Amino acid sequence: MSRIENLKRLLAPHHLVFIGGSSLEVPINNCKQIGFGGDIYVVNPKTEQIAGYPCYPRLADLPVIPDAAFIAVRAELCVEVVSQLNALGCAGSVCYAAGFSETGPDGAVLQQKLVAAAGDMALVGPNCYGVLNFNRGVALWPDRFGGGPQEKGVAIISQSGNIALNLTMQDRSLPVSHVISVGNQACLGVHDYILPLLEDESVTAIGFYIEGLKDVAAFSEAATVALQKGIPLVVLKAGSSDIGTQLTMSHTSSLAGADDLYQAMFDRLGVIRVYSLAELVETLKLAAIGKLPAGPRVGVLTCSGGDSAMLADLLEVEGLEMPPLTREQEQALSGWLPEFGTLSNPLDYNTAIWGNKEACSAVFGIMLNGNFDAGLLVLDVPLAGTGDDSAWQTTADALIAAYAQGPKSVAVIANLPELLPASTRQRLLEAGITPLQGFRDGVSALGHLVRYQQRRQQVLAQGLLAQLPLCPASACSQVGSMLDEYESKRRLAVFGVGTPNGRLATLPEVADAAASIGFPLVIKGVSDRLAHKTEAGAVVLNLWDAQQAQAAAEAMSQKLVAMGLDDVRFLLEPMIDDAVGELIIGLKRDDQFGLALILGTGGIMVNLLNDSATLLLPTTPEAVAQALDSLKCIELLKGFRGRPEGDLQAVVETVMAVAGFAQENWDSLTELDVNPLLVRPRGKGVVAVDALLRVAG
Amino acid sequence: MSRIENLKRLLAPHHLVFIGGSSLEVPINNCKQIGFGGDIYVVNPKTEQIAGYPCYPRLADLPVIPDAAFIAVRAELCVEVVSQLNALGCAGSVCYAAGFSETGPDGAVLQQKLVAAAGDMALVGPNCYGVLNFNRGVALWPDRFGGGPQEKGVAIISQSGNIALNLTMQDRSLPVSHVISVGNQACLGVHDYILPLLEDESVTAIGFYIEGLKDVAAFSEAATVALQKGIPLVVLKAGSSDIGTQLTMSHTSSLAGADDLYQAMFDRLGVIRVYSLAELVETLKLAAIGKLPAGPRVGVLTCSGGDSAMLADLLEVEGLEMPPLTREQEQALSGWLPEFGTLSNPLDYNTAIWGNKEACSAVFGIMLNGNFDAGLLVLDVPLAGTGDDSAWQTTADALIAAYAQGPKSVAVIANLPELLPASTRQRLLEAGITPLQGFRDGVSALGHLVRYQQRRQQVLAQGLLAQLPLCPASACSQVGSMLDEYESKRRLAVFGVGTPNGRLATLPEVADAAASIGFPLVIKGVSDRLAHKTEAGAVVLNLWDAQQAQAAAEAMSQKLVAMGLDDVRFLLEPMIDDAVGELIIGLKRDDQFGLALILGTGGIMVNLLNDSATLLLPTTPEAVAQALDSLKCIELLKGFRGRPEGDLQAVVETVMAVAGFAQENWDSLTELDVNPLLVRPRGKGVVAVDALLRVAG
Repeated sequence: MSRIENLKRLLAPHHLVFIGGSSLEVPINNCKQIGFGGDIYVVNPKTEQIAGYPCYPRLADLPVIPDAAFIAVRAELCVEVVSQLNALGCAGSVCYAAGFSETGPDGAVLQQKLVAAAGDMALVGPNCYGVLNFNRGVALWPDRFGGGPQEKGVAIISQSGNIALNLTMQDRSLPVSHVISVGNQACLGVHDYILPLLEDESVTAIGFYIEGLKDVAAFSEAATVALQKGIPLVVLKAGSSDIGTQLTMSHTSSLAGADDLYQAMFDRLGVIRVYSLAELVETLKLAAIGKLPAGPRVGVLTCSGGDSAMLADLLEVEGLEMPPLTREQEQALSGWLPEFGTLSNPLDYNTAIWGNKEACSAVFGIMLNGNFDAGLLVLDVPLAGTGDDSAWQTTADALIAAYAQGPKSVAVIANLPELLPASTRQRLLEAGITPLQGFRDGVSALGHLVRYQQRRQQVLAQGLLAQLPLCPASACSQVGSMLDEYESKRRLAVFGVGTPNGRLATLPEVADAAASIGFPLVIKGVSDRLAHKTEAGAVVLNLWDAQQAQAAAEAMSQKLVAMGLDDVRFLLEPMIDDAVGELIIGLKRDDQFGLALILGTGGIMVNLLNDSATLLLPTTPEAVAQALDSLKCIELLKGFRGRPEGDLQAVVETVMAVAGFAQENWDSLTELDVNPLLVRPRGKGVVAVDALLRVAG
Repeated sequence: MSRIENLKRLLAPHHLVFIGGSSLEVPINNCKQIGFGGDIYVVNPKTEQIAGYPCYPRLADLPVIPDAAFIAVRAELCVEVVSQLNALGCAGSVCYAAGFSETGPDGAVLQQKLVAAAGDMALVGPNCYGVLNFNRGVALWPDRFGGGPQEKGVAIISQSGNIALNLTMQDRSLPVSHVISVGNQACLGVHDYILPLLEDESVTAIGFYIEGLKDVAAFSEAATVALQKGIPLVVLKAGSSDIGTQLTMSHTSSLAGADDLYQAMFDRLGVIRVYSLAELVETLKLAAIGKLPAGPRVGVLTCSGGDSAMLADLLEVEGLEMPPLTREQEQALSGWLPEFGTLSNPLDYNTAIWGNKEACSAVFGIMLNGNFDAGLLVLDVPLAGTGDDSAWQTTADALIAAYAQGPKSVAVIANLPELLPASTRQRLLEAGITPLQGFRDGVSALGHLVRYQQRRQQVLAQGLLAQLPLCPASACSQVGSMLDEYESKRRLAVFGVGTPNGRLATLPEVADAAASIGFPLVIKGVSDRLAHKTEAGAVVLNLWDAQQAQAAAEAMSQKLVAMGLDDVRFLLEPMIDDAVGELIIGLKRDDQFGLALILGTGGIMVNLLNDSATLLLPTTPEAVAQALDSLKCIELLKGFRGRPEGDLQAVVETVMAVAGFAQENWDSLTELDVNPLLVRPRGKGVVAVDALLRVAG
């Protein structure tokens, strides 16, 4: 059976075997505690029983072939145990022990042996906490944890055992179905767990803690399936990796670090990115409970001006809207609320109806039936021990009654996370209302899921889904050799990149070539040993007649000969005088992400603004248009202060042409730099005024 | 006695009087509960006793003059009660009732009467929750609250009663000394409470929730005192006010909204700004407990790679540093930690010494004695009910032992806020170690206080303190009349602003004037009715001889006469051809903040980048230099890519000259726009190429 089929058996096992000593009491009791219904076996040659189970001396003595094993022996013994389990036909195992590749070269050798011993078995770890499946009562897990049986919930996949453990300890009523601590990912990587979890109907969303991915293409493929199914993936990616530093050979590619490539991949596939555990938990909660918000329009209910003001600020930051009430809503509300209350969104439902369930329910119902995509009620329940809080519970109940599983996404939010106690959360949760804790993380969660929904519709409509990064292997690690400007432009032009209508000339031919092109023109020295032309004095602009051109070429020739460049030819090109803006296009190649184009502001601004967008290849015209639109300089290109509008359509076509060229030459292209790409007024196209390619082999 | 002296009595009263009905039971019992040691009197003409206290029928019957009164009668009756209290000599009162200016014009009239009745009495509210002073057992507060007696703690001042209430309910071990809900601020504004609180030795920091300030100058003055004393002010400012929208008359001033003025004031005075209640609480906690961090170098202790990675990301965002260990530290640590553990900062102190107090304490001590300004230990205590957590408590104890009230700022931080239970927090707190809850808010808190300390040193050294905003009154609400370019420049030049060495000429004089200036030159039409010269065709650049100049002036004259401008003169100025960058200087005037200059990037970039800094006046050369340095375009001016460096010293001098001019003309100047200010290479100065002033009266 394939490793993935084995993994499915590991995640939903009928028979478990625990191998090790007395430390097995914890995981065995964990399984019993969360209701594992299948058979449990223990293997230990030296003890009679552990945790009430008789010990089999050897794996071979077991009466069944176990689906899953928990191995709690020290690192050196793991290889033999795994080998025997594999021989036995055991589907999967959790290898808890540390002492493998995380400790250095010796450990890495041991890990290689472990991988060999595992064969196609689904081996989790080593150096991990293992697997929790609350749905099936499985706790192949060496330590304590929080949480318990769930009908539906979110799966957590974590590269850090401690973060996985901490996430089980969240005290925020997040229903968790699975927790997987992947450890060293010797056999199974983060990406491998996604598809089996997506096939489990109990999984409503998947949360990740990662520092990097071992297989970006496989993750992308799995994320695509998740997007199609509408199961949100929420990623906390920590740490800055140095993937690709050796690949930052060209000037432009240095604009995109590895994190930009991750971000580009997340954006492309609607993967939600968060920056703290609290934000991860709140976002997963909103993803897992009730309905997803259908759009950005939020109807807000509060009874505090301060809460209203803070919430309005935060909603605006997230790009969410609070549309005004309709005339009908105002009329309906005026029957319930006192005259001096302002009828608006956010609606201050006011102390006048506080604690009155009938009135609150009516008012909340009128709001929820408005023209909103989501409803949000602020509830700050007082700290336990400070007095009766029944009026707050009445408010929650009124919302539950008003909602009654309607078609909308409805959440309750507390300003300070601790002001929504577990009992209130539980009641809301059962009614399909998400209890969000903390204004900032809660509103972020809402923003994330609104954008997720929008992105999902977009991606499904545009059909980006089937496309995955190209060239996963590090096909060319060489620097490659530089092509001269003329040759670089010629090759790009074949793919449809607009270049100046120039001519290449030897020194004696310059005057004639100039006359045939017309004036003003520019002359550039061309040589595959000349990377920095301006610095070398090999560019002369604004030449107005053939004589000037010839003189300029001669002066340039002398300079270059003096520098040892005696094979220089001259590229004569007409000056472009109607550009409305400058862009640059660069290439980044990465062992994991394949090829990406960097589209950025040209000229001085690129370095000042750090204004660039990363496009993983292959890409689509829609994605290019979106990347272009995300640049800060786009205002300049859209007809800024009465200037002509730039030919944005031609920009998109040219980026697609460059992408086509890069993909066609993926195995040899090591550097690509179009700088600048002049953007002319609409209808006049764009011109790659300079270009540099470097190719290997 | 002055209202502020009365306020001090109100905050530390010996005798309290409660006026109202049975609802007084709550505040009276509150006072008893938190240990009020003085006398309590109750006034009610219709009841014998309330909360066990006999009722006096009238205020006049009281045996003492009360220091403070809590008034719980309905709005209409408040005026009479307040009037009697004032006549009696009562120092202050909390007027809880709503129904004043927040309800509309009738309520505003009632509030005016209330203010008149109060005289110099310190009236808190109306429409407020009042005052809690945990230190003195005072709860002039109509409802429940969290918290109790404190030796030292933070004071909270809130414009929202509900936010004040929520802050008392924080479950984060923040020691709170005072809570003041200011309500409608009829008599006492947010600013009034600061100085009395600063005089109270028990107050270690002050936290604010505000939506705007009623008296910016008074707040600034109080904030200056706080900065001198080293008492941090932490402000959550919500809502976007429309202060100053009517004042955005000139193009440049529209770059700064009212919020920028608040931000400029906060920056100037080292006031810390936060964006959520959780961040407010965590920042106040770090400000209130233990020592403030002396600088940005943090030594981090964790036992999880995931925690390390997340923390490193967050520390970098806050501009905090994690310097490497010294050779001595490495040597000392290697005696305690296993070989394969990496000795670095963050230090993974590892499971090898987990639960071993002696080893942990030794390792923590070695870290804390390193070359760091602050120590940070990550502690994620498991959720209660998931097993024994004594090893985590041992870790906390080891840190306490290692710290033993050393000279450093030391904090413990949990990744998820809920993973640091109250009992652990309490132990840490007593040892002077701040328990921070949640990585994001906790690290923000550390960043805030490091910057606070830096800003404080800077301000104390530079002596900005005595300076406060000018022209608090709205001295001129008129638009004013425009001065022509020549006159605008002349007036600015008097104050030291560099302008081109030009000449004003009538049409027949143009050729002669041109010859005397030299070429190339620019000609501009000058009229006080000509605001947009370029659009009117009244600017001709690059004129190379007297004849060209004369012809250009004649053509321009014809165009302008056709537009009805027959009194135009001509300003001839030499072209500046060596500018390395462009800036703009604008003016903003605000009823509350007085005058501010806006310093921004010039040319196209200003609108694309929204790149500007706000300088409240008066200002200092140091503040101007900092504002200049904060602009995104500063890289261009510092010698970008081999270009010459701009004359930054001249920029600072010129901004100071403009500031001097603005302050001298504060009562009449309504608009000021220097655009562009060309920055020439170092030593060559700057030139205000165009300028526009508008003056009233």
